[in-house]
Amino acid sequence: MLANSKYYQSIWFDESDPSVIRVIDQNRLPFFFEIKELRSVEDIYNAISDMTVRGAPLIGAAAAFGIYLATLEETSLSGHLGFLENAARYLISCRPTAVNLSRAVGYVMEKLKNEAEENARECALNAALEFCRQESENCRLIGEHGLSLIEEISKRKKGNPVNILTHCNAGWLASIDYGTATAPIYKAHLSGIPVHVWVDETRPRNQGSRLTAWELGQAGVPHTLITDNAGGHLMQHGMVDIVIIGSDRTSLNGDVANKIGTYLKALAAFDNNIPLYSAFPSSTFDFGIRDGLTEIPLEERDPEEVTHIEGLTGGKIEKVRICPDNTGSVNFAFDVTPARLITGLITEKGICKPHEKEIKKLFSEKIK
Amino acid sequence: MLANSKYYQSIWFDESDPSVIRVIDQNRLPFFFEIKELRSVEDIYNAISDMTVRGAPLIGAAAAFGIYLATLEETSLSGHLGFLENAARYLISCRPTAVNLSRAVGYVMEKLKNEAEENARECALNAALEFCRQESENCRLIGEHGLSLIEEISKRKKGNPVNILTHCNAGWLASIDYGTATAPIYKAHLSGIPVHVWVDETRPRNQGSRLTAWELGQAGVPHTLITDNAGGHLMQHGMVDIVIIGSDRTSLNGDVANKIGTYLKALAAFDNNIPLYSAFPSSTFDFGIRDGLTEIPLEERDPEEVTHIEGLTGGKIEKVRICPDNTGSVNFAFDVTPARLITGLITEKGICKPHEKEIKKLFSEKIK
Repeated sequence: MLANSKYYQSIWFDESDPSVIRVIDQNRLPFFFEIKELRSVEDIYNAISDMTVRGAPLIGAAAAFGIYLATLEETSLSGHLGFLENAARYLISCRPTAVNLSRAVGYVMEKLKNEAEENARECALNAALEFCRQESENCRLIGEHGLSLIEEISKRKKGNPVNILTHCNAGWLASIDYGTATAPIYKAHLSGIPVHVWVDETRPRNQGSRLTAWELGQAGVPHTLITDNAGGHLMQHGMVDIVIIGSDRTSLNGDVANKIGTYLKALAAFDNNIPLYSAFPSSTFDFGIRDGLTEIPLEERDPEEVTHIEGLTGGKIEKVRICPDNTGSVNFAFDVTPARLITGLITEKGICKPHEKEIKKLFSEKIK
Repeated sequence: MLANSKYYQSIWFDESDPSVIRVIDQNRLPFFFEIKELRSVEDIYNAISDMTVRGAPLIGAAAAFGIYLATLEETSLSGHLGFLENAARYLISCRPTAVNLSRAVGYVMEKLKNEAEENARECALNAALEFCRQESENCRLIGEHGLSLIEEISKRKKGNPVNILTHCNAGWLASIDYGTATAPIYKAHLSGIPVHVWVDETRPRNQGSRLTAWELGQAGVPHTLITDNAGGHLMQHGMVDIVIIGSDRTSLNGDVANKIGTYLKALAAFDNNIPLYSAFPSSTFDFGIRDGLTEIPLEERDPEEVTHIEGLTGGKIEKVRICPDNTGSVNFAFDVTPARLITGLITEKGICKPHEKEIKKLFSEKIK
C-alpha cells in the first residue's frame, strides 16, 4: 500500500543486504515514518514484544523471518544446543494470543526439517518469503470477498457513503499488504464505492487513532476518529452500516479473540441489528480450540499502557500520565467475542458463518 | 468528603467574602488540588462550560449560585433588560444534556418571584444554599438505599470484595457531597464491607482516571483503573458483581442519558446477567420525556477532546495529539441507555425499576 505516495509492505527483505529484515516502525507512526532494521532473532523478538511490529498476520511474518535470521547464526536443526528449535520456541513465546506466530514459525521449521543443512539459509528465507506472499495474497482475497458485502449495502444506500466501523488496526500495517478488516474497504474505495470509516481510538495503545487513521489518510479513504465509547451511540442512531474487525485467533466454533473492546462493539452491533464481520487469513484459525471464551490465552500487558498515554507534543513523542501517580491498573489486551454475536467470517476462501460445520466445510483440507 | 485529609464539598459559599463562590478546579485534578473563585454569571458559565465544574448535580448547584451572583449586579426580576431572566436563560444554555441545570435555575427563580426586590440577594443565596443542602442530603440517601444492594452481594461473596464497575465520575466531585453512583460505595466501605471498584478511564475527558480514581484514593477505597474497552471482558469472566453509574437525565420511562459509553457497559452487564443501577437525585428526572432515546438532547463537544489527551509530564499538565494532524473526529459526549438494560434506579426516595409506573408511584408529588 502507499505511504507518502510510495509503495510499501509492512515488512520486507532486500537482497542488497541479506542479513537484514526491514520493517516500518509502528511505535513511531503516525508522527514519524521510520524504517527499522532487524538483524537477529533477538531483534525480531524485541520488535514483536515492544510492538514495533504488531497485528496477527504481521507478527507471524516477522517470526518467520526470525527463523531465517537464526539460520544466519546456525544452520543445523539439531546442532549447537538445538539453536533453531530454541529460536522457534523463543519467538512463539513472545505474544500469546495471536496463533499466527506459532503457525508461521511452524511453517518455516517444517520446511527446514525436509532440507539438507547446507540449504538451511536459503530454505528458511524462501519459506519466510513464501509465507509473506501467501498472507499477502490471502488479504487480497479477503478484500475481494468482503467487497461484495459493502457493494450490497451501497446499493441500498443509493449513493450515500457506506459507514463502516472498525476497531484497532486490522490494516495493511497489521498484515503485510491490503490488511484484513481494511482489505474490503480499500477494495470498495478503489472501485468507486463511497465509503466512510469510523475509526475507534482503541485504548490503551491507540492503534486506531495512530495507525488506522494514518493508513486511511494515506489511501485517501474518508474517515472520522471516535473514542472507543462512541460506537454504541452511533449504532443506535443509524450511523453505522457494517462493522468489520480483524482477529488474533478464531476458534473452530467461530469465537473471535481480538483487541480488547471488540466484544462491546459486537454487543452493540447485535443489539442494533447491524452486521459484524471478522476478517482474517486462515492462519488465524485455531482448529484445536472449540470454546474460544475459555480456551484462547489472552495476553495481559504492562499496566503503564493504561495509566499513561503517548502522543505528540512540541514535535516529540511524549508520555503523559492520566491518573493519580499511585493508581493501580490492569491491562487486558484482548477479549473474546462469542460466535453468536458475529454475522460472518471473511477469509481467503470466502465468507462463512461462524459455525463449526461451515468452517469445517471451507477448510476441510487444513483440519486434521 | 475528604481531600488531602480535610473535609470539602465540591462547591461552597463562605460568608467572609459573599461576592465569591468557590469550587475545586476539576480541570487541574488529580495533578493539582486548586480552589477557583467565581465572581459573576460569566465566571459560572465559563466554569460549567470548560468543565472546571461538571456532573449533573454539581452544574445544577453552580447554576443556582450563578443566579445569586447575578443578584449582586441587579436585584430586579423585571428591571434592566430582564437581567436575571437573561442570566437564567444564559446559564441553562451552557450544557444541554443534564436537566439539573434548568431544574436548579428554575428553583431559584421561582423563589425570587415570590420575594420582594430588596430581599432578592438573600433570597437567591438562601435558595442556592438550600438547593445544595437538598442535593447533598439526596446523595446521602442514595448511599443509604444503594448500600442494601452491596450488602446483599457481599453476603453471597462470603468476605470476598464486592467488585463494582463504574463509568465516568458520578462521585462527590460530580455532586456536592457523597456522590451519586459512589454514595453506596463510600457507605459500604465505611460500614466495613470489602469493596473493589473498577474505574473506567472514560475517554475523551478521562473523568474516571482523573477524578474517580483520585476520589476513591482519597477515601481509601480499593480500586483499579481500566480502559473503557476492558469492562466487557471483566464481566464475561465473573470479575464484576454490580455496575453503578450516574445519570445526566432520566426520562419518565427510565431511559438514562449518561456519559458516552455507558450504553456499551449496560449491554455487557445485561449479556452477562450482572445488575446495573443508575443512581441520581430526582433533580435528574425529566418527567416530560417519555422516550429518552429520541428526545433527550445530547451534547456534542470540541473534536479536539478526541484527537488530543491531557495528562501530566515533567510536572506540568500537557496535551498530546494521538492521531495524524489532519484527522477529523466527532465528540458525542453522552449516550442513552434504554430502560430495558437497567436493573434499577437508586434515588433519594428509594430504589425502583426503570418503568413509568414505578417511577410515578415513587415521585407522584413531583409529577404534574
